[in-house]
Amino acid sequence: MGWLADSHMARRGVAGGKEGAFHRLTEAAQGSYHYVYGPYSAPVLRIAPGDVVEFETLDAFGGAVKSEDDLPSKVLNMPFVNPQNGPVSVAGAEKGDVLAVHVRSLLPRGPQPAGTTALIPDFGGLTSSSALMLNAALPERVKKMVVTTEGVVFSDRVTLPYEPFVGTMGVSPEIEAVSSLQPDYWGGNMDLPDVAPGAVMYFPVQRAGAHFFIGDCHGRQGDGELCGVAVEMAATVTVQIDLIKGWSIPGVRLETAEMIMAVGSARPMEDAARMAYRDLVRWLVTDYGYEESEAYFLCTQAGRVRLGNMVDPKYTLGASMAKRFLG
Amino acid sequence: MGWLADSHMARRGVAGGKEGAFHRLTEAAQGSYHYVYGPYSAPVLRIAPGDVVEFETLDAFGGAVKSEDDLPSKVLNMPFVNPQNGPVSVAGAEKGDVLAVHVRSLLPRGPQPAGTTALIPDFGGLTSSSALMLNAALPERVKKMVVTTEGVVFSDRVTLPYEPFVGTMGVSPEIEAVSSLQPDYWGGNMDLPDVAPGAVMYFPVQRAGAHFFIGDCHGRQGDGELCGVAVEMAATVTVQIDLIKGWSIPGVRLETAEMIMAVGSARPMEDAARMAYRDLVRWLVTDYGYEESEAYFLCTQAGRVRLGNMVDPKYTLGASMAKRFLG
Amino acid sequence: MGWLADSHMARRGVAGGKEGAFHRLTEAAQGSYHYVYGPYSAPVLRIAPGDVVEFETLDAFGGAVKSEDDLPSKVLNMPFVNPQNGPVSVAGAEKGDVLAVHVRSLLPRGPQPAGTTALIPDFGGLTSSSALMLNAALPERVKKMVVTTEGVVFSDRVTLPYEPFVGTMGVSPEIEAVSSLQPDYWGGNMDLPDVAPGAVMYFPVQRAGAHFFIGDCHGRQGDGELCGVAVEMAATVTVQIDLIKGWSIPGVRLETAEMIMAVGSARPMEDAARMAYRDLVRWLVTDYGYEESEAYFLCTQAGRVRLGNMVDPKYTLGASMAKRFLG
Amino acid sequence: MGWLADSHMARRGVAGGKEGAFHRLTEAAQGSYHYVYGPYSAPVLRIAPGDVVEFETLDAFGGAVKSEDDLPSKVLNMPFVNPQNGPVSVAGAEKGDVLAVHVRSLLPRGPQPAGTTALIPDFGGLTSSSALMLNAALPERVKKMVVTTEGVVFSDRVTLPYEPFVGTMGVSPEIEAVSSLQPDYWGGNMDLPDVAPGAVMYFPVQRAGAHFFIGDCHGRQGDGELCGVAVEMAATVTVQIDLIKGWSIPGVRLETAEMIMAVGSARPMEDAARMAYRDLVRWLVTDYGYEESEAYFLCTQAGRVRLGNMVDPKYTLGASMAKRFLG
Repeated sequence: MGWLADSHMARRGVAGGKEGAFHRLTEAAQGSYHYVYGPYSAPVLRIAPGDVVEFETLDAFGGAVKSEDDLPSKVLNMPFVNPQNGPVSVAGAEKGDVLAVHVRSLLPRGPQPAGTTALIPDFGGLTSSSALMLNAALPERVKKMVVTTEGVVFSDRVTLPYEPFVGTMGVSPEIEAVSSLQPDYWGGNMDLPDVAPGAVMYFPVQRAGAHFFIGDCHGRQGDGELCGVAVEMAATVTVQIDLIKGWSIPGVRLETAEMIMAVGSARPMEDAARMAYRDLVRWLVTDYGYEESEAYFLCTQAGRVRLGNMVDPKYTLGASMAKRFLG
Repeated sequence: MGWLADSHMARRGVAGGKEGAFHRLTEAAQGSYHYVYGPYSAPVLRIAPGDVVEFETLDAFGGAVKSEDDLPSKVLNMPFVNPQNGPVSVAGAEKGDVLAVHVRSLLPRGPQPAGTTALIPDFGGLTSSSALMLNAALPERVKKMVVTTEGVVFSDRVTLPYEPFVGTMGVSPEIEAVSSLQPDYWGGNMDLPDVAPGAVMYFPVQRAGAHFFIGDCHGRQGDGELCGVAVEMAATVTVQIDLIKGWSIPGVRLETAEMIMAVGSARPMEDAARMAYRDLVRWLVTDYGYEESEAYFLCTQAGRVRLGNMVDPKYTLGASMAKRFLG
Repeated sequence: MGWLADSHMARRGVAGGKEGAFHRLTEAAQGSYHYVYGPYSAPVLRIAPGDVVEFETLDAFGGAVKSEDDLPSKVLNMPFVNPQNGPVSVAGAEKGDVLAVHVRSLLPRGPQPAGTTALIPDFGGLTSSSALMLNAALPERVKKMVVTTEGVVFSDRVTLPYEPFVGTMGVSPEIEAVSSLQPDYWGGNMDLPDVAPGAVMYFPVQRAGAHFFIGDCHGRQGDGELCGVAVEMAATVTVQIDLIKGWSIPGVRLETAEMIMAVGSARPMEDAARMAYRDLVRWLVTDYGYEESEAYFLCTQAGRVRLGNMVDPKYTLGASMAKRFLG
Repeated sequence: MGWLADSHMARRGVAGGKEGAFHRLTEAAQGSYHYVYGPYSAPVLRIAPGDVVEFETLDAFGGAVKSEDDLPSKVLNMPFVNPQNGPVSVAGAEKGDVLAVHVRSLLPRGPQPAGTTALIPDFGGLTSSSALMLNAALPERVKKMVVTTEGVVFSDRVTLPYEPFVGTMGVSPEIEAVSSLQPDYWGGNMDLPDVAPGAVMYFPVQRAGAHFFIGDCHGRQGDGELCGVAVEMAATVTVQIDLIKGWSIPGVRLETAEMIMAVGSARPMEDAARMAYRDLVRWLVTDYGYEESEAYFLCTQAGRVRLGNMVDPKYTLGASMAKRFLG
């Protein structure tokens, strides 16, 4: 983890590797899970910056889809889906700060097959919605997959690499309480595969204590989460949570050893792309000494885009720049 | 080039490596360049399937931006931009066939600095247009860059890899003649970095002879061609053009040694993403034995998206699947 | 108001004209106003179905823009804008019911000039946002207008008709608390000029008591609320609130003597249009005996669309059918 | 027609009522119809400014849908749909001028039932497309309607008013030849009900002679042309064509006795709305003495929006201002 010594945490005086207390938020300790990101629920845990927390997350179905016969339209109780752990209150966090969350590890838990994907009526990237169109829905379907750190057994023909990430993570809005199905500037349901072990996430704190939430872990996912349901799984995820005082950012950013990325969530999708790239340009100007038009040119010639989701209430894209191109 | 023996060309009876005649379409031989993809111009060259053609392309400015003082708004004469070589008529090509174009090499030509990018008023991904908004335009600016096969000299701080590709390529629509600035199902100005040496492009033929056009080569480009202008350069580009009879595809596809990709061009951007993934699902069903919902699931868990452009009249994305995941 | 006897209230057993108790919710009685539509605030008033309530609403700025020198960026404290009266709890209302709200009268209150509009940086239909674009913001500006029932004095040259309506009105979501700047299926900041005296609004109840909110009255507005700020004014607005048990509707609908309208709020705008028309087709099928394709044809030949807003977090459109065309 | 004396034609020195020669372009005289708006077809008629032309137009199906049993997918031969009369070359017209087209009358012709609407697979506002989605198409259906100047007999229950207009009209692009199914800045398939008898259309000339096209007349249509097919009919349409030298406009505008309207065609729909309102603001500034922010405010408080189509390759909206509000 040598790169953390040169990360934005370190640049702003936070020793990313310096470890505080360790907390374990088991299912039992969590008790009731949450379905909104908001300020109206009491913290289930209070930590200091630098502390490490291990969460036992549920899958996006709250475990209700136990077999391929458990059709989501029958076993789910909307809007009580995508349950979240938290909120975790971070001492000293205030509006205008940044919460830096280092994702350390992510492992599947629970009985096999641990992974679930599904076709849910009226939901998905290649599926018309009965709220908008007259076409009949696609047939509902559940698919279970064995998921281990060795891979995701997609079929007899194909085993896909285990490339886990956190689908939903972020801080509470200031006065809103927003569905855990939605991503926005505070994080939430971004479904962005870069939110993976090794990455440091930067969230703009909106209220005292930050109120961090996490859930919806995935064994892997293609770009866009096309049918709307990745390799959903209950998981054990461990993060270190730090606080950067007085760093004002307009939305979610992240950093790995190789790159920096700004995240945009919006509709239509081009607005998410603009939001991500716009903030990446801002970042290059503010922290890397680029004149604005030069930053715009650099992104034009060397920026990369990762499509997170094209199915949620807002679409999420990340725009990134390789550190080796930063000069 | 061993993978070509297992490509979709080979699957359909075309020996991708078997070489026909060689043609050179120099600037002088081309004579007047074209600004629309359409059926109303006479072929400048007639070839047989399997023939190889070397084109001398102009840059997107037609060479009019010779220095950083040549502002596009002064030296360009709209709509006469993005000049194209062609049309090349391919013997035997008919509506309902596929033109398979193997990109063999792409080299910059002309004096250094060979590469040009620019901020053009009212144009670009982070730029509002005076056709839509009241905001003042960004200042116009041209940036010249040395481009060799060793790299693109972006600045004193950064040299970017030479990763050339063809910005605009495709076949004529049946009855329309469409600006070479626009991408669509027949190809055109996709600005997709995967259209690079090594790739085989598949274009759905719309009229007798196919009428192939090509131009707008780039020394490299980030995802989305953010400011609207990549590393534009005059180039020598060599392609082999084959014909696949009786393969009906709804839009552009491409193939490399590692992956297959379907391309979508549309607005808003989510429709381009849907179009690309929708055709990738179709391809998995038709050619790889996938049941449709399984193909949808596989794309969900393992599909990749490349954003070509977010600036042209239609946005272009490619949705791809690694061959190693095809089972 | 004879048409109410044939309204959807009457069809479902609610005598729209039968009046219950009268309540007055003055500024003082309201006390603190609300900035989210949500279930986390205690009712300020409890009523029975059929009761009439008179509200003293604040303008969208909470009265902070007192003169043309009070620039919004200086006097507003985001996110504390668009203050709402309520919540009003309605006895017996449960999820799956409909709240029928008959708008009876709407009058400006407070000192003249009572109306305010403004250009707010980064906000508005013809304004690029610094969250998306690099262009400089438009100059900020406030314009005050005298507003009486005789008209809105726009300038020395033009007085516009007084055509008041309620910009923001609706019921609480079930578990979310959403900014009063946003419209959605529960109502909220639709900025739709048809929400005017004489109309009956139908809102799908999401939780026990419905929790009705109202605010943001306008002296008038063009289609789309182009710059984002209508003729904002503090107002006295009187509504009768009824309850229709067991009428399940997916979003907001409304009815006047002349027409029925379904409302859609979404991005991009075509999705709002689809949502509105989709629900209008549903309504024709369910309540007017139309076969679905006939309803689709009737909307094609005789539907009308009103653009409410093209500036809020979701755009709002209403799709309507004249009652004289319903057969 | 007294208002024409104060129209923009008159303001720029064209006597709108002064009549030139009369021309009749019958089906026989037209001979072959056109399926693209472009410069590559020879004029079928040459006129002087002020001349009047009566056109015999075909319906959008070229008359191929003769009964409710003639399903479009069987009888149409794509892309040969929406046949257009013209091109008419106008003496003296040059790029940078405006063609002013006064729609004088529009009558159905041919045997009854003269009107046709249809559900065409993968096409329509509430219909998903197999190019984008996996859902099954809606059942195909044709509906015939008697259309006279007395009304459109929609069903036994409902006769709708006869409110005819021209669906497709405009001038040739400079170098492109674009499908007659598409609207754009030169006109084309706008499907905007305001293009009706009494209106004067203003088209920005793109090439010498203007090359005017017209077709696709409708007996009436709701806002948005929801299923994609209005009351299609063969028609006799009469227009007077004038030329305004040296009036530079960026897109289509129109004028009636009561209002002025700017038209935008784009995707997503909000861009069409912005384009229309942006040009209306420009018009208020240029011709009515408004300072730009005042024009923006006036549109905010008094602008009206008409949704033309939400089904064509670009969506079309008109933004208008009542003349009585112009001061």
